[in-house]
Amino acid sequence: MSQLRERLSFFVATDRLKETQRANWLYTEPSHETVAEHVWHTSLLAMLLQDTAPDGVDHSRVRDLLIIHDLVEVFAGDTFLYDDVPLDDVTAREHAAGERLMAMLPDDQYERLDPLWHEFQAQLTAEARFARAIDALHPMVMSWFPSAAGHLTPALTPTKILTRKRPAIESFPALWSLANWLVQQAVDQGLISGDEMVSPTPGR
Amino acid sequence: MSQLRERLSFFVATDRLKETQRANWLYTEPSHETVAEHVWHTSLLAMLLQDTAPDGVDHSRVRDLLIIHDLVEVFAGDTFLYDDVPLDDVTAREHAAGERLMAMLPDDQYERLDPLWHEFQAQLTAEARFARAIDALHPMVMSWFPSAAGHLTPALTPTKILTRKRPAIESFPALWSLANWLVQQAVDQGLISGDEMVSPTPGR
Repeated sequence: MSQLRERLSFFVATDRLKETQRANWLYTEPSHETVAEHVWHTSLLAMLLQDTAPDGVDHSRVRDLLIIHDLVEVFAGDTFLYDDVPLDDVTAREHAAGERLMAMLPDDQYERLDPLWHEFQAQLTAEARFARAIDALHPMVMSWFPSAAGHLTPALTPTKILTRKRPAIESFPALWSLANWLVQQAVDQGLISGDEMVSPTPGR
Repeated sequence: MSQLRERLSFFVATDRLKETQRANWLYTEPSHETVAEHVWHTSLLAMLLQDTAPDGVDHSRVRDLLIIHDLVEVFAGDTFLYDDVPLDDVTAREHAAGERLMAMLPDDQYERLDPLWHEFQAQLTAEARFARAIDALHPMVMSWFPSAAGHLTPALTPTKILTRKRPAIESFPALWSLANWLVQQAVDQGLISGDEMVSPTPGR
C-alpha cells in the first residue's frame, strides 16, 4: 500500500475542477456549472439510465470511468463542443495534461487509474462508449429538458447539434431517441434555431 | 423500463445541489464548495483509498452510495457538523426530504435508488460505513492537508474534531490514523487551537 499522503497530494490537485467552469448552463439558474459538478451529475445520470445500455456492460466500471473522465481538465481546462478548436489540438493537449496529472500518483494507484483514463479516451470498450454517451447527453438534458432556465443559443440548429452528438450517442438507441426529443424541445421552446424536422419520437 | 422523461424530471431536480453550498472550504481558494462538488470528490477519494477498507467490501456499491448520499439536501440543505442543531432534528428533516425526493422517481427506479439511500442512512453495512468514513474524512483533507488555503477556525480543537469524527472513521484504522495526522497538521499550521497532544502518526 502506497503512502496515503502521496495519494492525497494528487487528490488535492483535483480540487481545481471545482473552479473550472464549463460552457453549459445549470438547469435552474443563469449560471454555469463547474467540471466537478458535471462529473457528479454524469455519474448519477448513468445510474438512472443504466438499463438503456446493452446487456453485459459493467456499470461499476462505467461509474468509475465517469468519476475520472474529466480529471485531465485539472491542467487542460474545458473545451466547448461547438468551439472551433481543431480536435487534434484538444486531444494532444488533453493527453499531455493527463500524463502530467497521473504522474502525481504513487505507482500502485497509477497502475489502477491510468488505464481507466486511457480506456475512456480510446473509446474501444462498451463501458467507455456508454460513459461517453452519458457525458454527451448531460448538457442536452440540462439545457433543453422542459422547463430549463432557457438560454438562447440561436447559432445552434438541430443539424449542427445532432451532427456533433451522433458519434457519441447514436449506438445507444434509447439515448439517441432521447437526444432527438431534447433537440425538439429546444426548438419548441425557441432556444435554438429550427432548420429541419427532427424526429419527435418521445424518449422511451 | 419506465419512461426516461419521468426519470429526467427527478434528475433535473437534483441540479439544485450545484447551488447548495457546504460550510467547508475549497483546498486552493477562499470559497466554499457546493454539495455536488463534494459528492464527486468523495467518490474519487473512495477510489483512491479503497484498499484501506476491509476485504470483502463491495466498492462498486460504496461508489453508488456516495453518488446518492447527499441527494436529500435537494430539499433539506446542508447541515454543518459543528453547528448546534439537535441531531434528531437533522435526521427527521433529512428523512422527510429524502421521502419527498425519492417519490419523484418512477417505480422501477425508486426500487433501485431508495434502498441505497436508506442503506447509507442506516449505516448497517460495511459499504455504508466505509462511504460514511470517506464522507467524514473529505473536509478534513480539504481544510488541513498541507498546504491548504488555510482558514482559521480557532473555535475548533483536536478534542472537539476527533470526538465528532470518531464514530464515522475510527473503525477504519488507516483512515483514523490519517484523520489524526490531518488534525495535527491543522494544529501545526495554526489553523485550529491546540488543546492537547494528538497522535503524530503519519497517515500510512
